[in-house]
Amino acid sequence: MDPGGRFLAEIEEQPAALERLAASAGEIDAIGRRAAGARLVRIVAHGSSDNAASYGVYAFALLANLTAFRDSISLLTYYDAAPDLRDSIVVAISQSGRTPDVVEYAAAARGKAALTIAITNDADSPLAAAADATIPLLAGDELAVAASKTYTTSLGALALLAAAVGGRDVAALADDVRACAQAMGTAIPNVKAEAGGTAALLHAATQLVVIGRGAELATAREIALKLSETCRLLADALTTTDLAHGPIAGVGPETPVWVVASDDPCLPAALEAAARARAAGAPVIASGPVAARVVGAGIRLATPHAAQPILGPLLSVVPGQLFAWALALARGLDPDSPAGLAKVTVVP
Amino acid sequence: MDPGGRFLAEIEEQPAALERLAASAGEIDAIGRRAAGARLVRIVAHGSSDNAASYGVYAFALLANLTAFRDSISLLTYYDAAPDLRDSIVVAISQSGRTPDVVEYAAAARGKAALTIAITNDADSPLAAAADATIPLLAGDELAVAASKTYTTSLGALALLAAAVGGRDVAALADDVRACAQAMGTAIPNVKAEAGGTAALLHAATQLVVIGRGAELATAREIALKLSETCRLLADALTTTDLAHGPIAGVGPETPVWVVASDDPCLPAALEAAARARAAGAPVIASGPVAARVVGAGIRLATPHAAQPILGPLLSVVPGQLFAWALALARGLDPDSPAGLAKVTVVP
Repeated sequence: MDPGGRFLAEIEEQPAALERLAASAGEIDAIGRRAAGARLVRIVAHGSSDNAASYGVYAFALLANLTAFRDSISLLTYYDAAPDLRDSIVVAISQSGRTPDVVEYAAAARGKAALTIAITNDADSPLAAAADATIPLLAGDELAVAASKTYTTSLGALALLAAAVGGRDVAALADDVRACAQAMGTAIPNVKAEAGGTAALLHAATQLVVIGRGAELATAREIALKLSETCRLLADALTTTDLAHGPIAGVGPETPVWVVASDDPCLPAALEAAARARAAGAPVIASGPVAARVVGAGIRLATPHAAQPILGPLLSVVPGQLFAWALALARGLDPDSPAGLAKVTVVP
Repeated sequence: MDPGGRFLAEIEEQPAALERLAASAGEIDAIGRRAAGARLVRIVAHGSSDNAASYGVYAFALLANLTAFRDSISLLTYYDAAPDLRDSIVVAISQSGRTPDVVEYAAAARGKAALTIAITNDADSPLAAAADATIPLLAGDELAVAASKTYTTSLGALALLAAAVGGRDVAALADDVRACAQAMGTAIPNVKAEAGGTAALLHAATQLVVIGRGAELATAREIALKLSETCRLLADALTTTDLAHGPIAGVGPETPVWVVASDDPCLPAALEAAARARAAGAPVIASGPVAARVVGAGIRLATPHAAQPILGPLLSVVPGQLFAWALALARGLDPDSPAGLAKVTVVP
């Protein structure tokens, strides 16, 4: 296979994977309804799944009016803390279902939490066995080291689960997920062409900052991770406010700043961060449905609007995936198999 | 004043500031006891104060057996979410007491939360006015843009508050804070000399990764922020596990990796991350009480053991502060006034 062929194929499979996930909305609805009455959602994950968890914080807040947070795994696995989990749901996300401390957390939480839910691409994994209920991502085998379709299906699963826990019309949301999948399918060839045509502009970059806020912080984190994994550069994801609180001092012509621009309440903050980066002399890359509103961007990777705002991150990550693929190739790297990484990370 | 003179003076004032804070333990105890019965602690902050919040997650878990988390500020300030705050404590941290969205969050939470507590260096600030109760940091004026003494006193305030909420002996913990202050006072001249003697080794670095886990993630984040603020480089803080989940692919001889090594349950993970970084060819910097255990570190900045493990982060940040000061000077920069930063950050 050509270098990057797997990663590209899996990026392109995302619309079909999201369609399959949407078709399982009834099962997700049934799981979510078992969690009625819970007051807190504790999400545990690492890597891309933890970036999805950042999205989950917003999905549960906005679709179920529930407080969700990325819980500290180490408190339970290293410090033997015994948090009161009685009215918590635990949502444990792992593509492989074999991330050791996520499995350990889920096993410890089961029976103490209202409901322990695994979100995984392997319904026969140790994580699925450790949880009360499992939402399979149905993404098909993911072989490239850098996750793509398991990330976007994790977002979809979180949105559908949050809607179910919140007693919303899950079938209607599933229709909107399908609409996003179709829009994504239409957009991918255009974004791929744009990314392929512009990636060489960042050929020499050794570091990069990705900015997002609110629900799009997940997107910024995932774009930064894709670039770090595949392009041998150090990409740091920051909120718009984080940037101003220090890191802007390290930003200049050698540090491109990527701004995720969505038509969302946080857009003014994103535009302000872009202006600040430009003023510091940084090359600016803008992506998302309102990328055109980022003044002075040297690269623009536009995406369609989502069927509803909370589903925006399902689409806005795609430019980051395709740009990482294109930049890795432009640098002579194989985005399928980055040096130093394995598909299943089993470090302590 | 010499370049960096303010920042250095404020680093050196930390022991005295911590002594003053410890002397106010009775007032902190009284505030904490008003929060008895709360089940959740929502911490809101930006910048260095948000790094202190990372520590608060562990302080409340380990000293009060309470779940604490860094709440999403944007949910309340941008998305108009209305979380159920009934049995939450809100802890809002801001050195200046004037970070706009932190003040906004505290004002919105007051009356809905069990107790809204400000931790600030300005007891007459808008944040103090917005909260039910205020813990003054008593650090004295902090004029350098990069925070130092307000960071370590924020850690001390969080530990004392957590102990009070947990019904522990706050006076005994205050004695341990005093012991840390004394150990810090003894250590500063040595660490300063070591940092001054080794900073030039990183003269050419444009990027750096700082690794910590558990309670020391706060330290890693704060060291990364100090270096980003003052040294015109991009420093990214990662957990030991984050590193393995992608960013390790971007680490090599041009990316020094700084490992915070404390005698803490997470130490094996930190040592494993150091080995992984070394294997990738990265120069390794080790700091903390067991810096000597990090094999192959080219720079070692040892700190004393804390009087008890949960107070470790009060001491382990000091090498990062002093190294940032020394490296900025080695680069001909003024660490007191980094380009592009203001002391009070008022962005959206």
